[in-house]
Amino acid sequence: MSEIKALLFDVFGTVVDWRTSLIDNFTAWGKEKGINGDWVGLVDAWRGAYMPSMDEVRKHPERGFVILDDLQRQSIEPLAARLGITGLTSADFDYLTRGWHSLHPWPDSVAGLTRLKTKFIIGPLSNGNVALLTNMAKFAGLPWDIVLSAEIFEHYKPDREAYLGAAKILGLTPGEVMLVAAHNNDLAAAHNFGLKTAFVPRPTEYGPLQNRDFGPEGSWDYVVKDFNDLADKLGC
Amino acid sequence: MSEIKALLFDVFGTVVDWRTSLIDNFTAWGKEKGINGDWVGLVDAWRGAYMPSMDEVRKHPERGFVILDDLQRQSIEPLAARLGITGLTSADFDYLTRGWHSLHPWPDSVAGLTRLKTKFIIGPLSNGNVALLTNMAKFAGLPWDIVLSAEIFEHYKPDREAYLGAAKILGLTPGEVMLVAAHNNDLAAAHNFGLKTAFVPRPTEYGPLQNRDFGPEGSWDYVVKDFNDLADKLGC
Repeated sequence: MSEIKALLFDVFGTVVDWRTSLIDNFTAWGKEKGINGDWVGLVDAWRGAYMPSMDEVRKHPERGFVILDDLQRQSIEPLAARLGITGLTSADFDYLTRGWHSLHPWPDSVAGLTRLKTKFIIGPLSNGNVALLTNMAKFAGLPWDIVLSAEIFEHYKPDREAYLGAAKILGLTPGEVMLVAAHNNDLAAAHNFGLKTAFVPRPTEYGPLQNRDFGPEGSWDYVVKDFNDLADKLGC
Repeated sequence: MSEIKALLFDVFGTVVDWRTSLIDNFTAWGKEKGINGDWVGLVDAWRGAYMPSMDEVRKHPERGFVILDDLQRQSIEPLAARLGITGLTSADFDYLTRGWHSLHPWPDSVAGLTRLKTKFIIGPLSNGNVALLTNMAKFAGLPWDIVLSAEIFEHYKPDREAYLGAAKILGLTPGEVMLVAAHNNDLAAAHNFGLKTAFVPRPTEYGPLQNRDFGPEGSWDYVVKDFNDLADKLGC
């Protein structure tokens, strides 16, 4: 096994609890603004629109790469209308979209990353855009060395360009990079392109809707309980 | 004055003392390897080749962007030959090139950046490639939030794409970003493209060869003694 030099992390679900963070944020905000709405339904539907919106970018390279903030902003208006949440202004939709910049980490994330940083280069490798990831890191105290994003490679995961571009820009071979993720499909892609893999379960990510990723579904290099367990196993 | 949200730093000369670091590194290494050479002359000549090598990239966009590590690796061999430093293998030239990844910060750099990070997004905006800047940050303890490089924008400073690309990828207006640099020409470009500017003198950067940048040569937004002085002035 070649020496691992960088650990790259999937972010939404792996490092941060997007669902609870957004639901709590929007519920408090709606109460303050006097806007009633099925915020839980909106957040779940919004996440449901995430993959199809990236597929559209993939299918239409001639339109150029579109960052996640813009995809989320485009998705939210029709979803709110469908759920009967009315009276939202353009600034309100901007606020909701910006909610993705202020997500709370899982309880072990910051402590585990801080330990892992002592021995490895650590960074996100996320479909979130650079500004989103940078603002989130400041908000949540994520101690990244670098911020790597689909935006830099102009390809969303699981496209090969995202994984191989990340290794290349770090001056490393794919085997010197390990992806840490709570999603088996992300790890399968990373593994196919020669990266090392670590699975961490986040069984409450989707709340009652969670129907997968309760355990590893591949021969990943590491299967850990959480980021502190990963730090233990990697000798940090 | 619009609110400054991110501070981006020129790196070579502004954050790190490349000249003393390289001379000390190569002198010790040469002694160990039994290779005699005018290391001071080599380092100064190498730095002299830096601007022309980037100009070549600028003049030949059809060749694609070439990262700084590769430019430095190309420059070093003929320079060593010209200075009569013989017996260097390809691995030796790789070692010398890699020297740019391990540069020591000025005495105020880490303390000042640590203070500035409490209030602002901080990152390099350097012609060094991402791997170089990432490795340097680990080596020198530079607490960057993000690593921005000419490599990401495929344009070397002072091209507009580097400055405006940096603001855009952070989701900020140019006026919300301030460039901190020891070089008036870098600040002049940043100012032309709408960024805020801060000058910090590094009068020993070029050693006895220094012939410019002893003081500000433009109406920069801030002129400071060092990074701690900048932190004072920005209320950190």
